[in-house]
Amino acid sequence: MLSKLMLPEIRELIESRDGTTLSEVLDMWQPVDIAELFEDLSDDDERTAFQLLHGPQRTLIFEYLDRQTQHFLLESLDPTDAGALFNDMSADDRTALLEELDEGDREKHLRTLSAQQQAIARSLLEYPEDSVGRLMSPDFVAVRSNWTVEHVLDHVRRHGQDSESLNVVYVVDHDMHLIDDLRIRQILLAPIHTTIERLMDTSFVSLKASDLKRSAIEVFRRYDRTALPVIDDHNKLVGIVTIDDVLDVAEQAATEDAQKFGGLEALSEPYATTPLLTMVHKRATWLVILFLGELLTATAMGYFEQQIAKAVVLALFIPLIISSGGNSGSQAATLIVRALAVGEIRLTDWVSVFRRELLSGAILGVILGSIGFLRIAVWSAFSDVYGPHWIQVGIAVSLSLVAIVLWGSIIGSMLPFGLKRLGLDPATSSAPFVATFVDVTGLVIYFTVSMIVLSGTLLKE
Amino acid sequence: MLSKLMLPEIRELIESRDGTTLSEVLDMWQPVDIAELFEDLSDDDERTAFQLLHGPQRTLIFEYLDRQTQHFLLESLDPTDAGALFNDMSADDRTALLEELDEGDREKHLRTLSAQQQAIARSLLEYPEDSVGRLMSPDFVAVRSNWTVEHVLDHVRRHGQDSESLNVVYVVDHDMHLIDDLRIRQILLAPIHTTIERLMDTSFVSLKASDLKRSAIEVFRRYDRTALPVIDDHNKLVGIVTIDDVLDVAEQAATEDAQKFGGLEALSEPYATTPLLTMVHKRATWLVILFLGELLTATAMGYFEQQIAKAVVLALFIPLIISSGGNSGSQAATLIVRALAVGEIRLTDWVSVFRRELLSGAILGVILGSIGFLRIAVWSAFSDVYGPHWIQVGIAVSLSLVAIVLWGSIIGSMLPFGLKRLGLDPATSSAPFVATFVDVTGLVIYFTVSMIVLSGTLLKE
Repeated sequence: MLSKLMLPEIRELIESRDGTTLSEVLDMWQPVDIAELFEDLSDDDERTAFQLLHGPQRTLIFEYLDRQTQHFLLESLDPTDAGALFNDMSADDRTALLEELDEGDREKHLRTLSAQQQAIARSLLEYPEDSVGRLMSPDFVAVRSNWTVEHVLDHVRRHGQDSESLNVVYVVDHDMHLIDDLRIRQILLAPIHTTIERLMDTSFVSLKASDLKRSAIEVFRRYDRTALPVIDDHNKLVGIVTIDDVLDVAEQAATEDAQKFGGLEALSEPYATTPLLTMVHKRATWLVILFLGELLTATAMGYFEQQIAKAVVLALFIPLIISSGGNSGSQAATLIVRALAVGEIRLTDWVSVFRRELLSGAILGVILGSIGFLRIAVWSAFSDVYGPHWIQVGIAVSLSLVAIVLWGSIIGSMLPFGLKRLGLDPATSSAPFVATFVDVTGLVIYFTVSMIVLSGTLLKE
Repeated sequence: MLSKLMLPEIRELIESRDGTTLSEVLDMWQPVDIAELFEDLSDDDERTAFQLLHGPQRTLIFEYLDRQTQHFLLESLDPTDAGALFNDMSADDRTALLEELDEGDREKHLRTLSAQQQAIARSLLEYPEDSVGRLMSPDFVAVRSNWTVEHVLDHVRRHGQDSESLNVVYVVDHDMHLIDDLRIRQILLAPIHTTIERLMDTSFVSLKASDLKRSAIEVFRRYDRTALPVIDDHNKLVGIVTIDDVLDVAEQAATEDAQKFGGLEALSEPYATTPLLTMVHKRATWLVILFLGELLTATAMGYFEQQIAKAVVLALFIPLIISSGGNSGSQAATLIVRALAVGEIRLTDWVSVFRRELLSGAILGVILGSIGFLRIAVWSAFSDVYGPHWIQVGIAVSLSLVAIVLWGSIIGSMLPFGLKRLGLDPATSSAPFVATFVDVTGLVIYFTVSMIVLSGTLLKE
């Protein structure tokens, strides 16, 4: 990794405008590391450094810069240089940059492209925003089934320069219909006069340009591929997607899932660059929905106001009881949402999960219930904070804990199945939604249990 | 994808013991799809099918079966067949299988290996369980810097058969020290008489065999690689790790993170196969810790018992108030934990996050506080459930909501920074921990605000 210790030397090279040495020094490092170092430079140094660099080195570093820095540097380049940069960028990275520009800027940059690159860029931008088409690079190596291995290797040497990946070559017919994919290993291992036809198994995995980006993640993982071919609606090969781009999609998807699970609408940009009001809006939506749900607790408690007035001691345990239900519910929801997401369990497994949670919930409930009783007993030995009927209060609290932890586990584990059954994402706000539901119902359980246990003493009519 | 519609035909082939046709039919599909189909067969059919298959096809399918099925089939094979299977498996998949067997079974299977494979398997098992060494395959293509491209291609054709990946070749010195890595594209694109030395840039990225598995994920993502070389403490090349294995590690790590965040210790096995008591233990640990924290709510409420006795109406809003604090805290914690995890924000950004959350929290608080006041006002227009002093009650509740939502956002966003600063994983139980902390402190805020607002009316001395 490029050490920050180099920063002063690099600053010096930039300030003395020594582009040749700068380029040589940077050449010893990975583009992603250089890009990170760039982001630590002042705006002026960054701009100067970028103007000092040229050709493929500049393009490679540019592709690893964050979006903001890319925009800033684009503005600072003269139109010819900006055009050259756009022409050299790989098609998929270029699409990702262009799709975020406004109409006018996009058009301006598109016009700086060569006729051929312009056609490619425009056709990629025509795919829907969340589709595989936007991730795709039209640069791949296509071969014919009657070629020999030697012919393929020659072809690669002459025409493979721009290909996004040479780990796989694609066999097509005269009309560009995809017939097979061959890993480069199959070609490298075969005697050079073997024809491609003899290496083919016509069993291949492909993506459709109109598929959702997200769906590509699962295909890559399942089939252990580093690149996958993309076909259009007529089975014609139109591009390839490489695993590095899919890893970025996967990271973005994981962030969105975590945010949904944590009870807010997924942000489409990083936390630090999301405008404050957008973020407040996305958080407020769910917060208000959950708040409206929680208002039901006030309604539920209204029914028990008389009891609380008679036995104020009951109120002391309300937060303890509802939060225990909420915590056990979140635990169960977390386990099931994740197990459903990775396919460890299926929709039809709900019965066995129900049985398991019934048992786990009961055991967990007894553990918490016992601690709760113990705590009330110990406190009552040294003070009269829980009054003369502390044993009954202790029994009411601990029985309620058993019931509510069990209830939380059941609701927490069953809700994700319910959401999935309805065709919704099981992750959607599961944990806070379960907590809210268990809060309202938990109060009813607590006061009902208390009414029964304390009917002869504290709550005598 | 292999359709389940084929299942009856395949069952028929198995029952008629027609191994040749079965092998031909299955050859049309991807091994992972066949493995999935196997798991839908009865135990008997599965065993028979597996005995009917042979050689590389059998091994490939076996590598994609789940652990349970692998164990079952291993038991059903005669020792010679099992030995052949083990010999043919790729070294990394074999390590993953062997490491889960008990001492005796592992020794038994190790002895069926050829001397060479046995030495490899034993040396891989010597690496610590969570280390890159366990993911590694010792099958790679190493070349010397004075070789020509033609020599390398010949070498690959002759010795590359067993290599785990041919997407990258590794340049080593006479002592196996790693000097450089070259993507196969660089070799394929170069004229055949070029020497390797001229292609080298001596800038490469490698993993250490003793590194944590988890750390490999970030390196693959950062440097866009499909395979990385692994070196020992003396910089000698000992193996390679391919991205498919790292994707599995990433999925496992994501599950563990989700579980930690959801407030339980990470399970080391899938939900459905974790023994009930192990699961209860992992859930009970955090549930009890959180419960002990929540017991403080009872203590806090003890101080306000007099107030509740005087104004029972205050008790009605306790669940609403503490859950609003908890929800806003979870939201903030989710955002920050994730942003820290993907590197969108750093430890040093806490000041700007603090400012942002101060503002967002205040806005969100005002929104919920207004809804809360409205609700109390509307209900009071139609009933006297909140008594004659409902305006003061409404003010107390809504001011408390503002304060608590703000407080929750601050605590939720700052706790992950605190955990990270202490060298702990920010994900550890953040959401429930924040909720518990905000519950206890939120009660103090609520009753303090109420005491001030209601001191002239409901809570007059």
